[in-house]
Amino acid sequence: MARLVMKFGGTSVADLTRIRNVARHVKREVEAGHEVAVVVSAMAGTTNQLVNWTREAAALHDAREYDTVVAAGEQVTVGLLAIVLQDMGVPARSWLGWQIPIRTDSSHAAARIADVDRTILEERFREGQVAVIAGFQGLAPDNRIATLGRGGSDTSAVAVAAAFNADRCDIYTDVDGVYTTDPRIVPRARRIPKIAYEEMLEMASLGAKVLQTRSVELAMVHNVPLCVRSSFDDPDDTPAMGAEGNRLVGTLVCDEDQIVEQNVVSGIAFSKDEAKITLRRVADKPGVAASVFGPLASANINVDMIVQNISEDGRFTDMTFTVPVADYDRAVSVIEAEKDKIGYDAVSGSTDIVKVSVIGVGMRSHAGVAAKLFKGMAERGINIVAITTSEIKVSILIDAAYTELAVRTLHSLYGLDEE
Amino acid sequence: MARLVMKFGGTSVADLTRIRNVARHVKREVEAGHEVAVVVSAMAGTTNQLVNWTREAAALHDAREYDTVVAAGEQVTVGLLAIVLQDMGVPARSWLGWQIPIRTDSSHAAARIADVDRTILEERFREGQVAVIAGFQGLAPDNRIATLGRGGSDTSAVAVAAAFNADRCDIYTDVDGVYTTDPRIVPRARRIPKIAYEEMLEMASLGAKVLQTRSVELAMVHNVPLCVRSSFDDPDDTPAMGAEGNRLVGTLVCDEDQIVEQNVVSGIAFSKDEAKITLRRVADKPGVAASVFGPLASANINVDMIVQNISEDGRFTDMTFTVPVADYDRAVSVIEAEKDKIGYDAVSGSTDIVKVSVIGVGMRSHAGVAAKLFKGMAERGINIVAITTSEIKVSILIDAAYTELAVRTLHSLYGLDEE
Repeated sequence: MARLVMKFGGTSVADLTRIRNVARHVKREVEAGHEVAVVVSAMAGTTNQLVNWTREAAALHDAREYDTVVAAGEQVTVGLLAIVLQDMGVPARSWLGWQIPIRTDSSHAAARIADVDRTILEERFREGQVAVIAGFQGLAPDNRIATLGRGGSDTSAVAVAAAFNADRCDIYTDVDGVYTTDPRIVPRARRIPKIAYEEMLEMASLGAKVLQTRSVELAMVHNVPLCVRSSFDDPDDTPAMGAEGNRLVGTLVCDEDQIVEQNVVSGIAFSKDEAKITLRRVADKPGVAASVFGPLASANINVDMIVQNISEDGRFTDMTFTVPVADYDRAVSVIEAEKDKIGYDAVSGSTDIVKVSVIGVGMRSHAGVAAKLFKGMAERGINIVAITTSEIKVSILIDAAYTELAVRTLHSLYGLDEE
Repeated sequence: MARLVMKFGGTSVADLTRIRNVARHVKREVEAGHEVAVVVSAMAGTTNQLVNWTREAAALHDAREYDTVVAAGEQVTVGLLAIVLQDMGVPARSWLGWQIPIRTDSSHAAARIADVDRTILEERFREGQVAVIAGFQGLAPDNRIATLGRGGSDTSAVAVAAAFNADRCDIYTDVDGVYTTDPRIVPRARRIPKIAYEEMLEMASLGAKVLQTRSVELAMVHNVPLCVRSSFDDPDDTPAMGAEGNRLVGTLVCDEDQIVEQNVVSGIAFSKDEAKITLRRVADKPGVAASVFGPLASANINVDMIVQNISEDGRFTDMTFTVPVADYDRAVSVIEAEKDKIGYDAVSGSTDIVKVSVIGVGMRSHAGVAAKLFKGMAERGINIVAITTSEIKVSILIDAAYTELAVRTLHSLYGLDEE
């Protein structure tokens, strides 16, 4: 017997046919003798509808009221899934965030989970009752509903798994696992059977939208093994946890130590959510960086990569940096408003760029990963605008037109193509 | 300064345009200096959608899960209305049943309100904050959401008004008041400016669907004046409470003593929700009624009118009674299953009947109301199948084909036609 948390997203509970499918997945695990908690999102489309209504109500609105409105989506799903489970003979009941409670901090609309109360649920697990828990929501210190921000149900699931020392947290989604890169771009991309938390964290934050970054962080901190798998698998033709044998399902996100055969590079991620801004002829003197990036930070704009050319005459230089596409216009306005204080000739920019990243914990012990990358790009005639590196990744900024070419080239180069 | 509870139903909050209209009604009362609590239903159509999903999930379902699902509707409306009010500069916040809490008994899906906690809200009223309260829901003793049954938002509003000693509870609806009878049948029907609780109770339970019966009972017990009025009135061209002068709005449901000019008859109600069942040649002996109505009561079927003919030979009689249309088939089955125990020749019945009622507290002191009715029906050639009377009403059962004729005749007969 093990303890298992199963999480199903919006497309997996989009209608009652799919909710029944979810219930069959749950039933399979219950019948295998496991203690099960299920965390569900709102039915696909519901949250968007609710969010749009709050925007229509007022452009600027009270985050506490926003939370009250949008949390209604998960409330509907938990009740329906509990009814379907009971109808299949599986003892179950629904739990809203405030009933457990799942306590959060007071950052309404973007709350973080502070604590999951174990008292009531532990008892129910012992009685064999499946807990159907509303994802995305908790109880703030003001005794009002708080939501975790978009995609927060993944985080709810991991927090529940951590609180109850679950043996595994299965994230059911509309893909069957994490791939070496986006299969729509590289048809020879392979499903990764096991990936380390750190790698998944980089994949998630660099554009692979399978898991919410925060949930991977939380899983890593509490060492909760995550399994990313498909909710469209036939529930009756899928082995229950512990009975998989060689029929490995999905992708296991786990501690590096548990991965025996570790590739140097695990995956290639890319993100089109980047825009670059270039300042021409900035004074090359101390304090200039602060005068550029201080005002951007105050405006809550995240700057990612920064490149500063060596000045030719020791007096002026060009400076390039990247910001999220959504903040591009705002960032340019901030820079223009500060023109006199910063001192530059002209500002220009582009959103037609992409960040491509090569990720792998194996890089720690293998030199030459970056060198191989630069050589590969040069052979293809792809110009690298900027570079950042960390212990387990190398990222380059290139012209968006070369996205497919660059990703395919790197995927082959690091031996990731399926045979 | 007064304290006012304002209740808006589903059609009044059907979309954001209408929610803004509701907010303007609220703002008017706040600007007149009143302390205001608003009770709202789910957006029109939402509750039906949610109820249908629970039925689709399983024909027989856990009432506690049903409550969790359907209570989501009001949760959305309170958040949206609070946002719109704040946007108009009116201090407001939403309150869910469990947050106040509004405590109910444990009859999930058909709960009764046990108590409304005053502690938090009294403080907010003093601070001038409008309380936007979710109707139809409360907190059951098991710490789960309970709903009050369809139309329960009226009851929520009255319970809140009673708990906070409100000076009035305004029920905004899609009609502009209570009419002497259905204006679709009698074009000369008039809006009743004031009606006594007892009369309204009879009107409500006899087919005038303006208010939920339970809410009128509660208002009567706690002596809360109710005002039934239109949510489609122009909020800016309507006087605030206390500034109405002669511009009487809607219908005031109040204590009999507060009505100076009391008509003998206040209104004519009719209900097509009746079916009659006749048993031919039942033994005319003690215990027969028990053998018929005992099994019906066990099957939870309400019997309304009962007529038993005088037997010709002292041995057999015919017995006719009415049940709600929805229970007709079931009632016939029960009677057929008990045939041997009851002992009768044949059972027959019809749903083509209507109950027409003449209602007025003035009947208590005026004789001859019933006599006038019988004479009027006889002159029109309308056969009366059964009769019941109470202190303030006379009801007759007639063939449904005569509904319009009977209602129009009685409306004229008791001087209710508009001049």
